[in-house]
Amino acid sequence: MPNPLEGVDTSDAPYLIVSSDTHAGLRPEEYREYLDPRFLPQFDEWVVARHEHRRMVEEVNGEYVAKWEGENAEGLRGAYDPEVRDKEMDADGIAGEVIFADGDSVTGQESPPFGAGLAAGQITDPELAFAGARAHNRWLVEFCATDPVRRAGVALVPIVHGVEESVKEIESLAGRPGIRGIMIPTMWHEHPSYGHPVYDPVWAAASEAGLVVHTHSGEGDWPSYNENWAQFVLEVPFWTHRPLWQLLLSGKFDQFPDLRYVVVECGSYWVGDLLWKADTTFGFNAKVKKLSSRIKGLISRLPSEYFGTNVFIGASTMSREEIRRRHMNGVDALMWGTDYPHPEGSWPHTADRLGSDFRDVSVEDTRLLLGLNAVNCYDLDLAGLTEVAGRVGPRPSALHQDLSLRTAPDAIRTARWWFDDYGMEWPA
Amino acid sequence: MPNPLEGVDTSDAPYLIVSSDTHAGLRPEEYREYLDPRFLPQFDEWVVARHEHRRMVEEVNGEYVAKWEGENAEGLRGAYDPEVRDKEMDADGIAGEVIFADGDSVTGQESPPFGAGLAAGQITDPELAFAGARAHNRWLVEFCATDPVRRAGVALVPIVHGVEESVKEIESLAGRPGIRGIMIPTMWHEHPSYGHPVYDPVWAAASEAGLVVHTHSGEGDWPSYNENWAQFVLEVPFWTHRPLWQLLLSGKFDQFPDLRYVVVECGSYWVGDLLWKADTTFGFNAKVKKLSSRIKGLISRLPSEYFGTNVFIGASTMSREEIRRRHMNGVDALMWGTDYPHPEGSWPHTADRLGSDFRDVSVEDTRLLLGLNAVNCYDLDLAGLTEVAGRVGPRPSALHQDLSLRTAPDAIRTARWWFDDYGMEWPA
Repeated sequence: MPNPLEGVDTSDAPYLIVSSDTHAGLRPEEYREYLDPRFLPQFDEWVVARHEHRRMVEEVNGEYVAKWEGENAEGLRGAYDPEVRDKEMDADGIAGEVIFADGDSVTGQESPPFGAGLAAGQITDPELAFAGARAHNRWLVEFCATDPVRRAGVALVPIVHGVEESVKEIESLAGRPGIRGIMIPTMWHEHPSYGHPVYDPVWAAASEAGLVVHTHSGEGDWPSYNENWAQFVLEVPFWTHRPLWQLLLSGKFDQFPDLRYVVVECGSYWVGDLLWKADTTFGFNAKVKKLSSRIKGLISRLPSEYFGTNVFIGASTMSREEIRRRHMNGVDALMWGTDYPHPEGSWPHTADRLGSDFRDVSVEDTRLLLGLNAVNCYDLDLAGLTEVAGRVGPRPSALHQDLSLRTAPDAIRTARWWFDDYGMEWPA
Repeated sequence: MPNPLEGVDTSDAPYLIVSSDTHAGLRPEEYREYLDPRFLPQFDEWVVARHEHRRMVEEVNGEYVAKWEGENAEGLRGAYDPEVRDKEMDADGIAGEVIFADGDSVTGQESPPFGAGLAAGQITDPELAFAGARAHNRWLVEFCATDPVRRAGVALVPIVHGVEESVKEIESLAGRPGIRGIMIPTMWHEHPSYGHPVYDPVWAAASEAGLVVHTHSGEGDWPSYNENWAQFVLEVPFWTHRPLWQLLLSGKFDQFPDLRYVVVECGSYWVGDLLWKADTTFGFNAKVKKLSSRIKGLISRLPSEYFGTNVFIGASTMSREEIRRRHMNGVDALMWGTDYPHPEGSWPHTADRLGSDFRDVSVEDTRLLLGLNAVNCYDLDLAGLTEVAGRVGPRPSALHQDLSLRTAPDAIRTARWWFDDYGMEWPA
């Protein structure tokens, strides 16, 4: 395996930080001008429901809402105002960003029409699903065009609701400045699962257009939770990263070698264990020959070998434990993110957070996690971003890092302990 | 937290091994005499289908079947013959066992009628589900009565198909010699999930009867796998341990303090991460106050505190990595198992396997994992089992263990790193 740390700058030069997880969107009524007018009657109903939702949240959790919105009134306007957004990113030390829908995770205001954002799989009417997605995409294209160097927009494509329509939408998004990916519904519900060949035209179109495919946390199996949020919180990573294994183990990255997939905001703690299981079960572990024969021929590499080339992890604000596991989970696949402007992220205190969590991490590892992996995954403008970073990025010394600390040359090999435990050969 | 290692014998005395995961069952046609005669027409069809299934497996995988059955012809008869079974257990060093249905995992022959065993959730006819379960239970009661010291039988109760019927079945099983638990369907499919109050009479009856509730791996979300086995293999642990969080996070172990639940044969690698997430999200982590308030009052302890008292892990033949993680996952909750007579387990080479995998483990930890935790969980006959173990159990020295090795007094505290990372207090 090539060494991803080779040639990475170990000096005190400012970090090029790309937030691999930010959100943006319009206030409900403002999507009106971006919507196909055929759907205006449903749109008016939806706007009313959105406002009702906000009132409900205020009733249940008013103190929290008032505090969050009061303390961050100006910065929260960056959800739709590019000038405010740039100011917030600068202050947070962020050069570039990967933008998802649903700007407001607290009261659900800056969301694409008809719920076409993070919970798109729950829409049952295919026409509404596409209408909502397209309204958001039209706006996102304009929004990203304001600065295609810094902004990498992720458009909405509800693939479960129509493969042909999806391919058309992907083709229409290809080459738009600053549009770098598509988000598909996290859950397929009663539709075919993502390993099914029916979606192959989607993967072909996305590869062709150079658009990275995403799932982002948000959905869960609500009927099973009996209104108990804890069930959702503990399960949501499973539902979010489930599509990864559908694509990987059914051989989509062999069938479409340029296909890239990123799973976003469901942590990265599960990565190492599933790579261990997948590598040893479907790789060359003699003990499980009975099973691995069943997918023989579908994948040509070890599952872990697709990480950092076809598969990346939008790991958002990683926990310290997840940072410690970086070599096992994929130091070339993990991408930090602030989750701006959501309160569960690091904004507006990103520099403080980095300073406390990355203190013991080498500069070269930090450069990959904070930015270079995203540049690689999304094929971003390295020169342009480096220029911005020179102005806004924090230096390693400002994060209290030890500039003499180096990553051991065999750090990845050692961290992936299952190669030794199972007597497996390290890939060439 | 009390120290589970206190008073555990550190001498070279033989290990009392309880296999927390074995299987037994009759050949299809032999269930006839145990079945309610009303269902004989369906039974005859089912027997034919079973034999067809075997022929299909022989066609696809004949060489493997012939080798496995040829090399183990005598021992495999222990699936239904108690004398053969005792001989196999003795040779394998096993004193006691926890017995599940489905003796034959290769060609599916020793299975309860109508698929009422490991895939019971897939049955759609409630009458057939109960008829199949009861036929197996009648036989299991006889089988366990042959040696209630060594055998702990787990009866079948398809709770999704009728709570009232289930309670009746549990009451009729209470106090039967050697019957120690019930197995419920792993998946609830379109029925209410297990955190729903509709099942409360089941948990009440099981607690009252002193029967431990189980889910055992076997089911998965087949429609989503597109006949790709890899998807099943990687997901099956999630589907198997999912009920644990339904019970724990909805407060069932507070509502029914004597309720015990064991999740079987889905590994234990996922335990530590989910305890971390559950402890910090629903315990006292200030960062997630917004979420923990939603289940406030439902659970009175930290999720990890239910392990070793209400929750145990039938971890079967643990990997070396899972053994290394024993203090994080719960050295008082993990239970070794041979999976006899399934080929994916350690039988008939259990002593060799233990000797290679437990070499670096202290004697006291080994005693908990191999037997004492199961004695505690199932309230087994310690004196009776110790006598059997004195005759058949391997000694620590025979497993190449270092008798002077002691578990550090703070091993559990140190292994549960999230208490330090999140600044949490260690429970009293």
